[in-house]
Amino acid sequence: MLKLYSFGPGANSLKPLLTIFEMGLPVERQLLNPSIFEHHEDWFKKINPRGQVPALVHDGKVITESTVICEYLQDEFPDYPKLRPDDSYGKAMMRIWTKWVDEYFCWCVSTIGWQRMVGRMVDHLSEEEFEEKVKRIPIPEQQVKWRRARHGFPQEMLDEEMAKIRISIARLEEHLSKHEWLVPEMYTLADICNFAIANGMQFGFPEIVNEADTPGVLRWMKQINERPAAKAMFAEVPREQVRGSPTRPQEQEAAPAAE
Amino acid sequence: MLKLYSFGPGANSLKPLLTIFEMGLPVERQLLNPSIFEHHEDWFKKINPRGQVPALVHDGKVITESTVICEYLQDEFPDYPKLRPDDSYGKAMMRIWTKWVDEYFCWCVSTIGWQRMVGRMVDHLSEEEFEEKVKRIPIPEQQVKWRRARHGFPQEMLDEEMAKIRISIARLEEHLSKHEWLVPEMYTLADICNFAIANGMQFGFPEIVNEADTPGVLRWMKQINERPAAKAMFAEVPREQVRGSPTRPQEQEAAPAAE
Repeated sequence: MLKLYSFGPGANSLKPLLTIFEMGLPVERQLLNPSIFEHHEDWFKKINPRGQVPALVHDGKVITESTVICEYLQDEFPDYPKLRPDDSYGKAMMRIWTKWVDEYFCWCVSTIGWQRMVGRMVDHLSEEEFEEKVKRIPIPEQQVKWRRARHGFPQEMLDEEMAKIRISIARLEEHLSKHEWLVPEMYTLADICNFAIANGMQFGFPEIVNEADTPGVLRWMKQINERPAAKAMFAEVPREQVRGSPTRPQEQEAAPAAE
Repeated sequence: MLKLYSFGPGANSLKPLLTIFEMGLPVERQLLNPSIFEHHEDWFKKINPRGQVPALVHDGKVITESTVICEYLQDEFPDYPKLRPDDSYGKAMMRIWTKWVDEYFCWCVSTIGWQRMVGRMVDHLSEEEFEEKVKRIPIPEQQVKWRRARHGFPQEMLDEEMAKIRISIARLEEHLSKHEWLVPEMYTLADICNFAIANGMQFGFPEIVNEADTPGVLRWMKQINERPAAKAMFAEVPREQVRGSPTRPQEQEAAPAAE
């Protein structure tokens, strides 16, 4: 039996959710609520001691880390639709992009998303209530991140992250203005994992992602959003409602990227 | 034909070097000299436009990114010794560790290594000569990093990175005090990729990595250093000589980690 614990279809949670819908795998899903720190509750830390979603449970075995889960599903269910090239070189080309999103692109978007959105999730708590919740977070630097989300990130850090976002989008555009997909001629986990972070940036970062500057990135996001699997996923899996978040449907997706 | 372009056996270059020696693959090697910015020269940027080592060329195809290269070698040469579990779950357990070193552990060690070592590599250059070299670096944030290595990283960044190093080593120790290898019962790319960053930290970070606090990490590093493949690699592949670097053989290895 397969069961996926995740947030709604944005950021790192989107990666295995979309992979599951693309593969058509029968997976039980449980959505956790980040605004009540549900992923830091004891019942969930028994599943993932790091208190992070997504987490996949397959016949009692726990697999964590969004990109690792996606490759696991491809390794374990080879008779389902392929989202990874068969040849070694194609796999390597795919992994250069999934590695890059995990170690670079996702972090800068995440910081800005946290600055904008996550603070709002906890602004109704008193300082004592907030610190009580932060104490339950098992990863020390996640504690730092929650405190910064509430009290504000250093401006120098925000500036540096915005610069990295520009570099990231330029790198995607450079490729996607010339190629349909990140790995030439095949829709793969490279697209899914980068789409998970990029989707909605035309609303959250319109000065960077827009028709004039990044037509390739917009075309690619539209093409993924129009796939039957993406439509089914967004129809079936509810998005998070962040208190005070804007009404545009995708703007909130950058929020809890690095969890 | 296989050809590997790398620095000496430390940090990210060590990953494919040790993998090649463990597998016993016939690979031509070319060492680049970081102190003269050889990886930013035009001839090398024709191979890897990002100007980063390691890079593997296999029958004309270029594969970059150290961890991706290691998995490529395992995918492409299944008849050579295995450094990756056969089952999907084991592969996932391995990838959690290789992903973690790439997105977390390697970066904090790299910053401190650059602060200590890379500045020295360029302190004989005039400001004009230095800037001339920096202009040839294709990745904008690598330009920032070289400038910081020369002029000093912000203290707040150094403090944060040191805290992350402590967290990283504690995570390794927690596991290695109970298990022989990172993936239980098998020496894998998880060990190689983490060893690439950790090796020598008992000299560079003795207040963090030492017999009293981290016996598990020390035992594991010793065990890898004593493997015939590691001995052969360190005997055959010369280490970088950083100007003014300490004489302890492994201390300089933390230097150019994130390249």
